[in-house]
Amino acid sequence: MMSHLRSGRLPDSAVRQESLRSLNLELVFRHIVTADRPISRTELANATGLTRPTITRIVEELLTGRLITESAVTHNGRAGRPRVGLTLSKTGPAGLGLDIRADGLAACVVDLTGTVRQLSFHPAPRSDAPTVLADLASMARAAVAAVAAELTVVNATLAVPGPVRDGVVQSAPALGWRCVDAAGPLRNRLGLPVTVDNEANLAALGEMYAGGPTDTSFVYVSGGLDIGAGIVLEGQLMRGTRGWSGELGHVSVHPDGEPCPCGSRGCLQTYASLSTILGEESAPADVTPDAVIINRAETGAPLTLAALERAGTALGIALSSMLNILDVNTVLLGGSFSLLSSWIIDIVKAEMDRRVLTASWAPIAIRPAVLGPDAAVIGAALTSIDEIRQHPTSWLARQTAGTA
Amino acid sequence: MMSHLRSGRLPDSAVRQESLRSLNLELVFRHIVTADRPISRTELANATGLTRPTITRIVEELLTGRLITESAVTHNGRAGRPRVGLTLSKTGPAGLGLDIRADGLAACVVDLTGTVRQLSFHPAPRSDAPTVLADLASMARAAVAAVAAELTVVNATLAVPGPVRDGVVQSAPALGWRCVDAAGPLRNRLGLPVTVDNEANLAALGEMYAGGPTDTSFVYVSGGLDIGAGIVLEGQLMRGTRGWSGELGHVSVHPDGEPCPCGSRGCLQTYASLSTILGEESAPADVTPDAVIINRAETGAPLTLAALERAGTALGIALSSMLNILDVNTVLLGGSFSLLSSWIIDIVKAEMDRRVLTASWAPIAIRPAVLGPDAAVIGAALTSIDEIRQHPTSWLARQTAGTA
Repeated sequence: MMSHLRSGRLPDSAVRQESLRSLNLELVFRHIVTADRPISRTELANATGLTRPTITRIVEELLTGRLITESAVTHNGRAGRPRVGLTLSKTGPAGLGLDIRADGLAACVVDLTGTVRQLSFHPAPRSDAPTVLADLASMARAAVAAVAAELTVVNATLAVPGPVRDGVVQSAPALGWRCVDAAGPLRNRLGLPVTVDNEANLAALGEMYAGGPTDTSFVYVSGGLDIGAGIVLEGQLMRGTRGWSGELGHVSVHPDGEPCPCGSRGCLQTYASLSTILGEESAPADVTPDAVIINRAETGAPLTLAALERAGTALGIALSSMLNILDVNTVLLGGSFSLLSSWIIDIVKAEMDRRVLTASWAPIAIRPAVLGPDAAVIGAALTSIDEIRQHPTSWLARQTAGTA
Repeated sequence: MMSHLRSGRLPDSAVRQESLRSLNLELVFRHIVTADRPISRTELANATGLTRPTITRIVEELLTGRLITESAVTHNGRAGRPRVGLTLSKTGPAGLGLDIRADGLAACVVDLTGTVRQLSFHPAPRSDAPTVLADLASMARAAVAAVAAELTVVNATLAVPGPVRDGVVQSAPALGWRCVDAAGPLRNRLGLPVTVDNEANLAALGEMYAGGPTDTSFVYVSGGLDIGAGIVLEGQLMRGTRGWSGELGHVSVHPDGEPCPCGSRGCLQTYASLSTILGEESAPADVTPDAVIINRAETGAPLTLAALERAGTALGIALSSMLNILDVNTVLLGGSFSLLSSWIIDIVKAEMDRRVLTASWAPIAIRPAVLGPDAAVIGAALTSIDEIRQHPTSWLARQTAGTA
């Protein structure tokens, strides 16, 4: 017996009148979200097949809920009445993104259009988890306050460098964290729903939003003290069964290589993490490891150049395994790898061309990520606001409850 | 700007009356498909929230279209009228599966309930592609004829050991194929729609249907002359961007290892394919390589036992990379690996426990696949019939057109 079908796109119970209303409201809203310019009520009626009275009612609901605004009157170049265009509101709900990096804390607020309205970074020495979370909450409150005149922050997403389960960071060696509840303390301090996710996943989402419609399937690899990857397939983040996908740093490059703190040997991490590339000479306290490596590479320091070559080769080998498994042919180098890309990108590409089975008839593209080190915090903020973009009716219901 | 949202579950245009009818028919049909016993009209009305007249109309349509049947009268144990139960039809549409293996050809027909109604295997010496496809078409016609009194075969799915694009097998070294159109010749000979897919993908689907609801996320690894893998995440086959995911055989185990015909070095293939395990002593012509290896291993032949240990270790290393990347914690050993599992399973498990980052807090399960070498052909047939289970209205429309 076939005991379970592939899940279809059908609703689980009959489509009734009220869910039909919600579906149609979400349909209209989605047309406004994806339009690349202000869209008129007539255009909405044509695009959706809904009647003018229905469009009028839905548009009124969206305007009242501060999800959309009417733009200045526009002319369509032909004779006749000028049209009023509808666009996403820049003064309605907003999403908060937070990021804990090895060298500091970041916060970001985006509005419903996905525009960054607030972005801040504070260098912070490595500290214990309660201190880090308290500092992050202060930054978050400042960011929310800074936009409060125009925007209502509705929820927050936190990026951390490691696998997460139910808001608890399972393991983040770069922070020295093991089983730390990050969602709880932030939720209590901010009074907002808080989601915690892997920084590579969120950075991949940030890159997808920034990259435009050409990049719907790619692997984003994040270099740094830890190495992680975010996987986007046809515009969807592939999180794995528990959100722990993309642990590229622990893919074996040489199975009998150096021991890794994870308990295995020869992990990519042991060849291509920032501390390995940096080598035994430690960096001065006031300069980031990336900056030290770039400075040494630019002056032609042979040990650094050799370390970059080893890192690039190992990264190419591990990425080849990933591409053979996933069937994706675009790679974005993010985090520290984006800063170091001019030294490693050709080496990585050469390994992939040799090791990916399909490369001979389906070329692989590799390039530095566009958002640089802010990809994860921007991706986190966009994830927060995307919740409203996907489910405008939940926001409208909250608005109604709030004013009732 | 967020230029593309994650694709939602919304339809692309307004929900109208006729699509509402289709949605509700598919909803009712889905309840009958997923029920584990005959289900009455009253139960359908309660489960779906649809009215009795609507249920009556839809059930009539499904009965006329031979998608469901009324089972014998059943009593529900209480007083009152006996109920008539509705179940999937065993005399309606059927799906055909075909499989080209290194040692022969297979065909399978399943009915709408997923029950295998016809399964045949013909040993066949390796031959050129046109001959293989002609032989396969003869087998397929015989299988269709054998069930014709009760079942109407509506479409066919072919399993091949290699990546496929638009019905064209890109590369199948085990068959000596490169860029072979497999769909066209079969479609012409059979007069049926034909889909071609990777055998590991289809075998994974077969295992999912056979395994019951516990296995909704797993990796199926298929051993043989070539090694491939099928990835199932939450009940969905992960095909990759072009259907070429799961090329586990070409994941690097030792990057400087032996050359692989693919052009790389140290691929899993060079450690764990049947011909590598078999070694230089060739097998007698009338015995399969698996049988030779099992016979030698059972008699304690040291070279064979050492080869199995090397193969198991390499498989464990490559699977660890896969699990670190995908975040899945169930592995099914299929194809030859299922026959050899008693020699390799502990070795594979030990490597994964050491090399998968999350293994220390989320245990990995590994076991032989249940369908054995028939997994791919059964999965192919189930894929064919699943098209009707997902889209009953398309079958009904064809029926109406055929009888008009």
